Amino acid sequence: MISISQVTEHIENQKIELVERKGIGHPDSICDGIAEEISRVLCKKYIEEFGIILHHNVDKILLSAGETIPEFGGGKIIEPIYIVLAGRATKEFNNMKIPVDEYALQAAKNYLKKALPNLNIECGVIIDSKIRQGSVDLRSLFKKEILANDTSFGVGYAPLSELESIVLNLERFLNSSEFKATHPELGSDIKVMGLREDNKLKITVAGAFISKHVSSLEDYLSKKQAIYEKMKKFIEDKTEKKFELFFNLADNPNDGSIYITICGSSCECGDDGEVGRGNRVNGLITPNRYMSLEAAAGKNPKTHTGKIYNILAEEIANTIYNFGAKEVYVKILSQIGKPIKEPLIVSIKISPYTQELISKAKEITKDKLNSIDEITNKIIDGKISVF
Amino acid sequence: MISISQVTEHIENQKIELVERKGIGHPDSICDGIAEEISRVLCKKYIEEFGIILHHNVDKILLSAGETIPEFGGGKIIEPIYIVLAGRATKEFNNMKIPVDEYALQAAKNYLKKALPNLNIECGVIIDSKIRQGSVDLRSLFKKEILANDTSFGVGYAPLSELESIVLNLERFLNSSEFKATHPELGSDIKVMGLREDNKLKITVAGAFISKHVSSLEDYLSKKQAIYEKMKKFIEDKTEKKFELFFNLADNPNDGSIYITICGSSCECGDDGEVGRGNRVNGLITPNRYMSLEAAAGKNPKTHTGKIYNILAEEIANTIYNFGAKEVYVKILSQIGKPIKEPLIVSIKISPYTQELISKAKEITKDKLNSIDEITNKIIDGKISVF
Amino acid sequence: MISISQVTEHIENQKIELVERKGIGHPDSICDGIAEEISRVLCKKYIEEFGIILHHNVDKILLSAGETIPEFGGGKIIEPIYIVLAGRATKEFNNMKIPVDEYALQAAKNYLKKALPNLNIECGVIIDSKIRQGSVDLRSLFKKEILANDTSFGVGYAPLSELESIVLNLERFLNSSEFKATHPELGSDIKVMGLREDNKLKITVAGAFISKHVSSLEDYLSKKQAIYEKMKKFIEDKTEKKFELFFNLADNPNDGSIYITICGSSCECGDDGEVGRGNRVNGLITPNRYMSLEAAAGKNPKTHTGKIYNILAEEIANTIYNFGAKEVYVKILSQIGKPIKEPLIVSIKISPYTQELISKAKEITKDKLNSIDEITNKIIDGKISVF
Amino acid sequence: MISISQVTEHIENQKIELVERKGIGHPDSICDGIAEEISRVLCKKYIEEFGIILHHNVDKILLSAGETIPEFGGGKIIEPIYIVLAGRATKEFNNMKIPVDEYALQAAKNYLKKALPNLNIECGVIIDSKIRQGSVDLRSLFKKEILANDTSFGVGYAPLSELESIVLNLERFLNSSEFKATHPELGSDIKVMGLREDNKLKITVAGAFISKHVSSLEDYLSKKQAIYEKMKKFIEDKTEKKFELFFNLADNPNDGSIYITICGSSCECGDDGEVGRGNRVNGLITPNRYMSLEAAAGKNPKTHTGKIYNILAEEIANTIYNFGAKEVYVKILSQIGKPIKEPLIVSIKISPYTQELISKAKEITKDKLNSIDEITNKIIDGKISVF
Repeated sequence: MISISQVTEHIENQKIELVERKGIGHPDSICDGIAEEISRVLCKKYIEEFGIILHHNVDKILLSAGETIPEFGGGKIIEPIYIVLAGRATKEFNNMKIPVDEYALQAAKNYLKKALPNLNIECGVIIDSKIRQGSVDLRSLFKKEILANDTSFGVGYAPLSELESIVLNLERFLNSSEFKATHPELGSDIKVMGLREDNKLKITVAGAFISKHVSSLEDYLSKKQAIYEKMKKFIEDKTEKKFELFFNLADNPNDGSIYITICGSSCECGDDGEVGRGNRVNGLITPNRYMSLEAAAGKNPKTHTGKIYNILAEEIANTIYNFGAKEVYVKILSQIGKPIKEPLIVSIKISPYTQELISKAKEITKDKLNSIDEITNKIIDGKISVF
Repeated sequence: MISISQVTEHIENQKIELVERKGIGHPDSICDGIAEEISRVLCKKYIEEFGIILHHNVDKILLSAGETIPEFGGGKIIEPIYIVLAGRATKEFNNMKIPVDEYALQAAKNYLKKALPNLNIECGVIIDSKIRQGSVDLRSLFKKEILANDTSFGVGYAPLSELESIVLNLERFLNSSEFKATHPELGSDIKVMGLREDNKLKITVAGAFISKHVSSLEDYLSKKQAIYEKMKKFIEDKTEKKFELFFNLADNPNDGSIYITICGSSCECGDDGEVGRGNRVNGLITPNRYMSLEAAAGKNPKTHTGKIYNILAEEIANTIYNFGAKEVYVKILSQIGKPIKEPLIVSIKISPYTQELISKAKEITKDKLNSIDEITNKIIDGKISVF
Repeated sequence: MISISQVTEHIENQKIELVERKGIGHPDSICDGIAEEISRVLCKKYIEEFGIILHHNVDKILLSAGETIPEFGGGKIIEPIYIVLAGRATKEFNNMKIPVDEYALQAAKNYLKKALPNLNIECGVIIDSKIRQGSVDLRSLFKKEILANDTSFGVGYAPLSELESIVLNLERFLNSSEFKATHPELGSDIKVMGLREDNKLKITVAGAFISKHVSSLEDYLSKKQAIYEKMKKFIEDKTEKKFELFFNLADNPNDGSIYITICGSSCECGDDGEVGRGNRVNGLITPNRYMSLEAAAGKNPKTHTGKIYNILAEEIANTIYNFGAKEVYVKILSQIGKPIKEPLIVSIKISPYTQELISKAKEITKDKLNSIDEITNKIIDGKISVF
Repeated sequence: MISISQVTEHIENQKIELVERKGIGHPDSICDGIAEEISRVLCKKYIEEFGIILHHNVDKILLSAGETIPEFGGGKIIEPIYIVLAGRATKEFNNMKIPVDEYALQAAKNYLKKALPNLNIECGVIIDSKIRQGSVDLRSLFKKEILANDTSFGVGYAPLSELESIVLNLERFLNSSEFKATHPELGSDIKVMGLREDNKLKITVAGAFISKHVSSLEDYLSKKQAIYEKMKKFIEDKTEKKFELFFNLADNPNDGSIYITICGSSCECGDDGEVGRGNRVNGLITPNRYMSLEAAAGKNPKTHTGKIYNILAEEIANTIYNFGAKEVYVKILSQIGKPIKEPLIVSIKISPYTQELISKAKEITKDKLNSIDEITNKIIDGKISVF
């Protein structure tokens, strides 16, 4: 069933708007990233070996922060980061053992090398794997259609508000390879918080610096200033609104207190993380929007309705928006025991609430439901980020 | 600033409503419960020893499920549950070492004995503690007022919808000591999912049975039926609406597949958990309401604005509701560097939108902000549940 | 083959003799004790369930000491002891899963309660199990005779020298329930070192006191003195030789440095342990005697030739000694692929080297080899200590 | 005191002699090697930073074997090896934190890369560090002379018997870079067992093959034969005695059972290890000789009397032997509270028992005691192997 109604409350009309993005080096994002990478690798290996995606759900990872003493130009690792991988995966199939721990550890380390290139993989982190055999009805694997086995829920919307867009893209800009080429001193643990009060924006950025690229307090301050200017320019290009920009607000250069790390993330010293505690599938935390609590990262991209519906809802919303809507909200609810392409309800709010848009929204929704398998493939190929 | 506007969308008017409660024995709730118990014990010990609540944040716990073979009348533990406690706590103060691990392990085990009385504490679970020293500016501890050091957000509403009330209270009923006295066979891992389509309710309950109280398949089926009848009666007393009730839907008695465990929770065999992935502070997961992603459990109840504001928002909403409102929504946003009793904005929606209610809402909000310290005490005394 | 020759060097003739016993609460002994208890429990459970002793070898355990702050009357656990159980055991047989971890954890905790009754089992120690499935040729299990699959070696002698006897029995005296009834303040981690220089003995005892039974420094010193007197009396009753006795030599009461613990063992604070690093099967470390490096504790008492031969060698030596020999040494070497009751060689040294003793030694050896199965049973029943 | 007497029992006169060497890739040797490498690195870092060797004792390491499925040309890692580093080290000195875990993890991994070059360091092994702060009287560090704080014991002898020499050198030959250059298929886990019955030797070698260098069963068998021939030749060159040589005796090519691994060690699949359970400081296990139980690997080479005396005893024995003795045994016993260069007794047995040798033995012993510090330096520089 597709139910379409009118948007009752436009985001830009809300007096106060709060948006947050935990950058890829944030401890929670690190956990999400590892979980998702493991799931993707398992999917590929399962398909390679058996032609199908076997049961897995590696959405439980905990990162217990280490302790370091960063120094200008380097530093010491007093206690390594400790990461425990948990969740379920098929470790045996057709009487064949599957090296799940090998894949998982390799995936985790490969991901860390990418997300935290300055982390000492050999001494700076201990990764333990507690991924265990999951149990699942094997017959279900070979069914043509995936049936929803739980009441799951997905939510999405389009477009991003101006503030959301700034928050999301500012982090991406700062973590782009172009930016890093000129500013290797900025780590990937960049948290962007955006607040809009009526027409005024306040953007607060916390970004961990990397000690080996900072030679002194003066060097830190001058590099910080240079980055600040680029961020300011970036935001000016995106909005006409007045804004204030804050960068590493907790710094207190007088007593030598600055935000500096060895590997570019606070997870090396004090900040723990877990899967599912950070960004939603659109990359943001948006208290002014309906959000799903689903931790998408690490879940099976073929069978986990919650993961798929969150992505699908966003895709439907975006497609309707691209067709001409001003604002779109989509909620999808599964129907236990029915194919996932037959949800119980897809509930859409659009604005403007025109007949043309209503028809188009229905059509788009049906199309997207019919091609729901593509989401699985895009996830496996890494074309969809889920955090 | 207190901003008051009108409720735009009444929950009971939404065509579809989805509500979920993960009962106290659910793996995610177990993690929440342990985290919160550790925080409470630490608060008490810190106060006892030093007169103040020292820095701590034990909101990262992972439970990796074990493997068991339940049998009628008992069963075997093939692989114990593994729980890792993480997060930060003050382990040394005034040159005095604080036995944080001792407190944490004892709190975790005490909590488990309460939440899963049939768990074999000695052989059924391995608990490792990775709680590490946190760093915090000590001077801040002795300040009269707690200042918000982050942009935090809390959300609450009142009253519970009829469906929410049924879902929440059905789990509480099934996990009450009265119910357990007659039905010791029902474990505490009870998940209640409620769906309303227009005026029709669908309640789905999954509840783990305890093997030592079940002697045979027949015994299971007859006890299941007896519990089903009591649940049905319970719901009938709460609503005039038509409803369907499902209980352990995945059972397939023909092939001996029933929901039975040794300790009363799926965490003994296959279901992992993490802090912050389950119920919100009002005990529910409510995709049709605005929700905070904040994991309240385990956070410092004196200084963590996010935790306090979520509870405060709910209290304000309830108080306004009790004064006569029909529906109330409250959002609170902190102001960095300002006392937590001076938030940036408290944004309230009420219905009906009368002058009397508006004034009263403001008054209540101010009162509650002024007595914000009481929340801390109530949390420590265990009078407020946060999941 | 039984080869008999004359003793060439009498222990009492050696100018210098060194003997050591690590008491049952010593970290290495704790590991040995846990390993052996797990093996015994597994044997019983395997026999109970399957009628045979399945493959296992749980002779790898590591104890990483904790950190405590003992105080008169009590104290704090800053960091719990961490024990990891490793080794191999059969976890599945005849398509039936065996709860090895459950048995092992329970055995370990039961043993700790006995060996360290003042240890806080819930908060003072974390036990992790890494015992994994072993692989073994199943057909071998049902063979009538156990074949040696390795070149193993056992060594034993009789009688204990006077010094050895004093060292061994002094620890047993101090750890007896009678002694503990009057001196609950003395823990079980008692290390006795004996040195003989010609005719003079020097006995050095280190014994951990238990804080809850010590109310003050004066109390410690007076209790220490009382125990010292009893030890002195004990030794006087055993020897005519002159001796010096030292007790907790490292104490320095002036700066408050005394040997006090919460649980009665140094493993709570600073001293790590491993299986196989302490006493040999006769309960002693005797550098003046030939010793086997075999770690007997935790090994399969039915099939592990090294374990069995060490015990057998001691039994043969004792029996020959009881028949009238003055001094006896026995070495046994296995023959790969032959039944363990058919060793490659049993090499015996006796004194006096009389024809009667030679014949008797051969006879005894043959008898003992024929009844080698009894050793297995006695080990399982806990009638033979192996450390 | 130096006491010199006559050798009473010549090794070559014993009818039966048993000798064993666990090669560098054996699980126990791996633990020894890692422990010693960590100690050496710590020594260097402590000296570099503070000018002295700070307190440490990292002689507790446990290796829990993994599970692999080797295949011709490669294979899968089903469960990684798990290694836990324990023991004590100084983590803070002069208010400066020392990155002990960083050093230890790096040392462990560097050592593994050398000892098991085919081990997948990223996915094949999980290393956890539980090395904790040790407590030690700091004043003692700056004393000119190290005082023995325990009754320790060292034992050594020279020369190696013919059998001992063959066993030791055969393993070194097989693990030499020259041999590996032509036989990369042979892993480093090579266990050599030597048995002499009168004049006949029996040498049994177990050596793990490396799957990526073995393409088929035939390839295995032909390579095994080639290695067998070289071993045979090697032994022929060393002895005139008759000998039998066995290589991978447990192979059963008919049912495909051969000794093949991915990384060249049985620790990847089934064989656990611990520090101190393998070779003595001369590289051998020699039940026909007096042996010390001391686990030398990982102990502080400056202060640990037991470690130093074992090496010293061997050096003294070798020097006396080189001077012309036929057989020499040396035992050294410490004297509590005295400098380690003033042992309680050095007890030497020599043969022939001539006046010249007696005088020379005393002289050599005094010299070696006076230059005892050199042992520390040689250990740190890696010039002395302790296992």
